[in-house]
Amino acid sequence: MSDLYPNHSFDIEFKDPKSRARIAKLKTPHGTIETPNYIFCGTKAALRCMTSKQAAEAGADIHLVNTYHLVVQPGADIVEKLGGAHGMTGWTGPMMTDSGGFQIFAFGEGTVADEIKGRRKQNPKEKLLLDITEEGAVFKSYIDGSKFILTPESSIDAQRKIGADLIYCLDECPPYHLDRDYMAKSMEMSHRWEMRSLEEFKRGADGSQGLYGIVQGGVYEDLRKASCDFVSSQPFFGTAIGGSLGVTVDQIYDEVVSWCMPNVPEDRPVHLLGIGSMRDVFKGVRMGIDTFDCVTPTRIARHGWALKKGEPNERMNLRNGRFRDDPTPLDETQDHYYSQTFSKGYLHHLIKSHEPLATHILSVHNIATMTRLMREVRASIKDGTLDQLEKEWLVD
Amino acid sequence: MSDLYPNHSFDIEFKDPKSRARIAKLKTPHGTIETPNYIFCGTKAALRCMTSKQAAEAGADIHLVNTYHLVVQPGADIVEKLGGAHGMTGWTGPMMTDSGGFQIFAFGEGTVADEIKGRRKQNPKEKLLLDITEEGAVFKSYIDGSKFILTPESSIDAQRKIGADLIYCLDECPPYHLDRDYMAKSMEMSHRWEMRSLEEFKRGADGSQGLYGIVQGGVYEDLRKASCDFVSSQPFFGTAIGGSLGVTVDQIYDEVVSWCMPNVPEDRPVHLLGIGSMRDVFKGVRMGIDTFDCVTPTRIARHGWALKKGEPNERMNLRNGRFRDDPTPLDETQDHYYSQTFSKGYLHHLIKSHEPLATHILSVHNIATMTRLMREVRASIKDGTLDQLEKEWLVD
Repeated sequence: MSDLYPNHSFDIEFKDPKSRARIAKLKTPHGTIETPNYIFCGTKAALRCMTSKQAAEAGADIHLVNTYHLVVQPGADIVEKLGGAHGMTGWTGPMMTDSGGFQIFAFGEGTVADEIKGRRKQNPKEKLLLDITEEGAVFKSYIDGSKFILTPESSIDAQRKIGADLIYCLDECPPYHLDRDYMAKSMEMSHRWEMRSLEEFKRGADGSQGLYGIVQGGVYEDLRKASCDFVSSQPFFGTAIGGSLGVTVDQIYDEVVSWCMPNVPEDRPVHLLGIGSMRDVFKGVRMGIDTFDCVTPTRIARHGWALKKGEPNERMNLRNGRFRDDPTPLDETQDHYYSQTFSKGYLHHLIKSHEPLATHILSVHNIATMTRLMREVRASIKDGTLDQLEKEWLVD
Repeated sequence: MSDLYPNHSFDIEFKDPKSRARIAKLKTPHGTIETPNYIFCGTKAALRCMTSKQAAEAGADIHLVNTYHLVVQPGADIVEKLGGAHGMTGWTGPMMTDSGGFQIFAFGEGTVADEIKGRRKQNPKEKLLLDITEEGAVFKSYIDGSKFILTPESSIDAQRKIGADLIYCLDECPPYHLDRDYMAKSMEMSHRWEMRSLEEFKRGADGSQGLYGIVQGGVYEDLRKASCDFVSSQPFFGTAIGGSLGVTVDQIYDEVVSWCMPNVPEDRPVHLLGIGSMRDVFKGVRMGIDTFDCVTPTRIARHGWALKKGEPNERMNLRNGRFRDDPTPLDETQDHYYSQTFSKGYLHHLIKSHEPLATHILSVHNIATMTRLMREVRASIKDGTLDQLEKEWLVD
């Protein structure tokens, strides 16, 4: 491994005796983060309405950008010319990119992936995925309809140009409802694509990036185990649990994640793709998940929600009229300038007035809340107080 | 004057021997600003997409909020309950409010005041101004059609609840195209409204606010002079040049402002209402204008424009395809984190991607640019180099 990843490492420092939870240091060329940690989504090389510096000030240690979106606009070559995702955003810490696969296949089903909801002007039923072959996937730009092809090789090439510290193999992400036969064939093709991704990665490896393999197999236990075996057998830096994880919390954790976790390499960081409510964090860390990513913290901010420790359903709806004349701070329990300075009544007013400042304040507050959660989770794993912490954060 | 304004003062520290330009200290209960200065528009108690702290970090010394907008949503009583405009926004420096008159009459003409363009959903031809009488103005909310009445007394009352340091008399703001007879009658009514504003102000004066009188009279020299005489005769803290100033730059400065400035009290601060391009600043300060306000810096940011020293037409259009792969900083001449960190190419990408971060970055950059302009203007007045500075900033 050290040949491929001379500047990356994953050092486990503490293991919870009561669960698979663990504390580790994940080292990358742009810095080291402590895990478990949360990877915020800066989809198009922008954390929507805050600068990366503001995210850092809110405690964020790492964020990701989406290869798919950047390939479509402005294009990987321009990203490279602009200094990569680090150069564009001014972010100096670790970054991650996905392979682009998830978005292509999410759109391929004729559904609008939530990531770009509100941006897409065309018929949401229009299929953007034109063709999937052994070679790769052909898709149309959601901006102007122009045609793109994404292959394992071109995804790695694009991710190299974007320049994140942690990158991904291209995989096929079939939707939940497809049958076991399709899933098995799809998983096999994903494995071939992952091998090609790895070969392309090796061809250009310069120590700046660490490659994650992805476990596929849908909601089928034998497929998940086979996929874990495949991923374990190859020199990936990290492991990601991807594809269809299930439709209920129980299915995700009691089945899919449970099947995978005993079968992935213990000495590699494990990322759970695209999931990250507070409840997910508590469930996931106990099962050994090291990193989470989800658009939730910034997306719900755009709809007027503030995440809060100990709040039913994890969040407050500041659009609610009961906050109209409430002069108390957004979140008096949280030590962040925004949470302390702005009142619930002011946020309610900004939302009612369609002021973009509402989204900015709530997005930063929500990132501050999730980074606080992760800090407290790490501390409680070390202290053996994770159960108690969960009761403080999650309230029915 | 000192009875009414024990905590306000305006001390002229330097006069340009070649023009009416002057350097002064304008003291308010929330701090002292040096003039000439620029008052940024935080219309609905929000500088659109930045916090007031970010505005302060970009050099802003003072900003205003609009009484009209806050009366309509959330209402002056709620603003008061939320700690006034200072309490809501977390701004600790001096603030100004207008009387609400401008917006009512701008909408009264059936035109959409640009301030809320993009927010109004109803027919732009719909008249929101229902009636003007000696008592005041009756108007409909642009949000839900509910009826409001604004009188000189209710405007002062609302401004007291909002709690800005510098506030305004209610005046009528008739549009440019009305004839001299209407203008004369309107001016007379404005003067009666200003007297009523002053009486209401005196009734509740507690030393926290300074009241500006407004010079009306449209584009008629004798009316402007009569209005200056009226305003000078009353114990206002400051003087504002308001109403229809003309339709060309020449008419504004060579006529209206020229007629007024020799006839307003020299020892009071003079504010030019609603005007503030870089060119306006250079023209205005030479004629003795102490403060400017305009929505331009933040409004043009929303359309992808960056203000820049020495740029033709004062600004760059970052939507332009020539910036697509330009890795140079947004403005290498400006010592602000945003101007230095983000490239023109990144801004172009954010604009093309409809990322709200573009507006945030450009708004902050534009405020930083205007505060830099004002700092350099003040320094050059003292140095006698204002002509040279104008050549550096304004390029055809």
